[in-house]
Amino acid sequence: MFNITILGNNSAVQAYGRNPTSQFLQAGQLGMLIDCGEGTQNQLNRFKVKPGKITHIFISHLHGDHYFGLIGLLTSMSLLGRIPDLHLYGPKALMDIIQLQLQVSESSLNFTLHFHPLEQEDIILQTENIEVSCFKVNHKIECWGFLFKEKKKKRSIDIAKAMSFGVPSSFYNNLQNGEDYIHPKGTIVANEELTLPGSAPRCYAFCADTLFDRKIIDKIKGVDLLYHETTYLKDHEDKALLRYHSTTHQAATIALEAGVKKLMIGHFSSKYESVQPFLEEAREVFDNTILAIEGSCVKIG
Amino acid sequence: MFNITILGNNSAVQAYGRNPTSQFLQAGQLGMLIDCGEGTQNQLNRFKVKPGKITHIFISHLHGDHYFGLIGLLTSMSLLGRIPDLHLYGPKALMDIIQLQLQVSESSLNFTLHFHPLEQEDIILQTENIEVSCFKVNHKIECWGFLFKEKKKKRSIDIAKAMSFGVPSSFYNNLQNGEDYIHPKGTIVANEELTLPGSAPRCYAFCADTLFDRKIIDKIKGVDLLYHETTYLKDHEDKALLRYHSTTHQAATIALEAGVKKLMIGHFSSKYESVQPFLEEAREVFDNTILAIEGSCVKIG
Repeated sequence: MFNITILGNNSAVQAYGRNPTSQFLQAGQLGMLIDCGEGTQNQLNRFKVKPGKITHIFISHLHGDHYFGLIGLLTSMSLLGRIPDLHLYGPKALMDIIQLQLQVSESSLNFTLHFHPLEQEDIILQTENIEVSCFKVNHKIECWGFLFKEKKKKRSIDIAKAMSFGVPSSFYNNLQNGEDYIHPKGTIVANEELTLPGSAPRCYAFCADTLFDRKIIDKIKGVDLLYHETTYLKDHEDKALLRYHSTTHQAATIALEAGVKKLMIGHFSSKYESVQPFLEEAREVFDNTILAIEGSCVKIG
Repeated sequence: MFNITILGNNSAVQAYGRNPTSQFLQAGQLGMLIDCGEGTQNQLNRFKVKPGKITHIFISHLHGDHYFGLIGLLTSMSLLGRIPDLHLYGPKALMDIIQLQLQVSESSLNFTLHFHPLEQEDIILQTENIEVSCFKVNHKIECWGFLFKEKKKKRSIDIAKAMSFGVPSSFYNNLQNGEDYIHPKGTIVANEELTLPGSAPRCYAFCADTLFDRKIIDKIKGVDLLYHETTYLKDHEDKALLRYHSTTHQAATIALEAGVKKLMIGHFSSKYESVQPFLEEAREVFDNTILAIEGSCVKIG
């Protein structure tokens, strides 16, 4: 499973029923919350994502519409009896804020919170199936994008063939990893005879808040799904630049030049009642574009 | 006008559509927000209370369900172009939290925020028409109740009589303040001849989070409306004590012994789906009890 659920798609303040940024990425057993604007715990509840499913939280930057809901979510998790550890990634000062808020309430969390401050572009999480890295984006304050990459899938075994060549099941793991089989009598059976290629590993890039900057293209080349903000429609390029945000055409240009498979746009300015024009404008440049619609669940790849 | 609108009536986490504590008290030209749990800005919007109407904010204590929505409300006010000054009252550390959150986002508020730390039981606000004081309540951490008292109403002038006695309109203000009129010829006209008593000044007491403690009775004697928390039903007295909260019977006992005119109960535990039993139980002790229902507007006095 490699799905993203949109919990909030708006910028700055809540408007027209749209909420500040938050997304939930389910990647196999991992539940990864990306950004956590005010009210995210209500949005999780609304869209039936159990907070207990969240194993990792990634905060892109410390503008309120991306993290004001975090302290409430953490304390609610604690009040509701969470036990498993939770991993939190974000700018260094995030932990100062959480610690101050726990301190003044003379309380602590019931579970262990592992904080991983973001300091440089790097791989920040490795599991058997997934690798997460962070990269800098160009915003008014320190701001991080995240790349969620499935690891190379293991080859799948053609069981009938493996049996016919007398391969013992104890060697199946080696087969999945691409090894040839050497028969006790010395004959070599090529791996390709016994296995089929695994499906291609998938990749999701979350670009947070950023102005139009081609420097990120190298980081997100060819991803299956790119989330790029479009705070403004194309006629507000000046305002976008001034406020370190992007327009529809700019996001779509990044998608096009990075050769991504699909573009998802969001972080709509509160001044727009309808977001449909965002879709129409982005598609003028990059056809395979979708809107980040709250409650929708997008399969990656 | 002396009305209170309930914006949130639940304790701890949001549940069954109920939100954490917040109330809006309109007292003449003053708009006073009392506590500000997460999502209060959405609740203001939902119940058509314009944030621009808020002139003063009072935060009882630093448990998250009473203030996590404050930073979002303040920054939204700023983003939406608020100009008038805003006065904020709360425990001292509240301002440290706000300052840290503004600092990490490298931003400031567009309007002037006057912070008044609560340090001792005192009158904290005086205007022509109202006086607000704070008093300590008995909770796990520093916690304040607030008393909102109208000032003595001016006497109303019987215009026909005043004219028949030849009182010049320049003396009307003195009449309202209770002065007798001395005619240029030396005759004295008693104030009671020319005026009628003003209506009785009204009073609202907000008791925040507290365990059952008769010490507050002196502070809230005879108020028109008392808000007292009832986190639990009467069968959970032990739990209430342990967590520094109150039950229905305890809140109603305080109302009874303080001789208040009406009791409003709220801060319901998230474990209860229906709050109707709270009303029934409280009325066993104090009949004139109402529930703090979100969106309801209660006229005081």
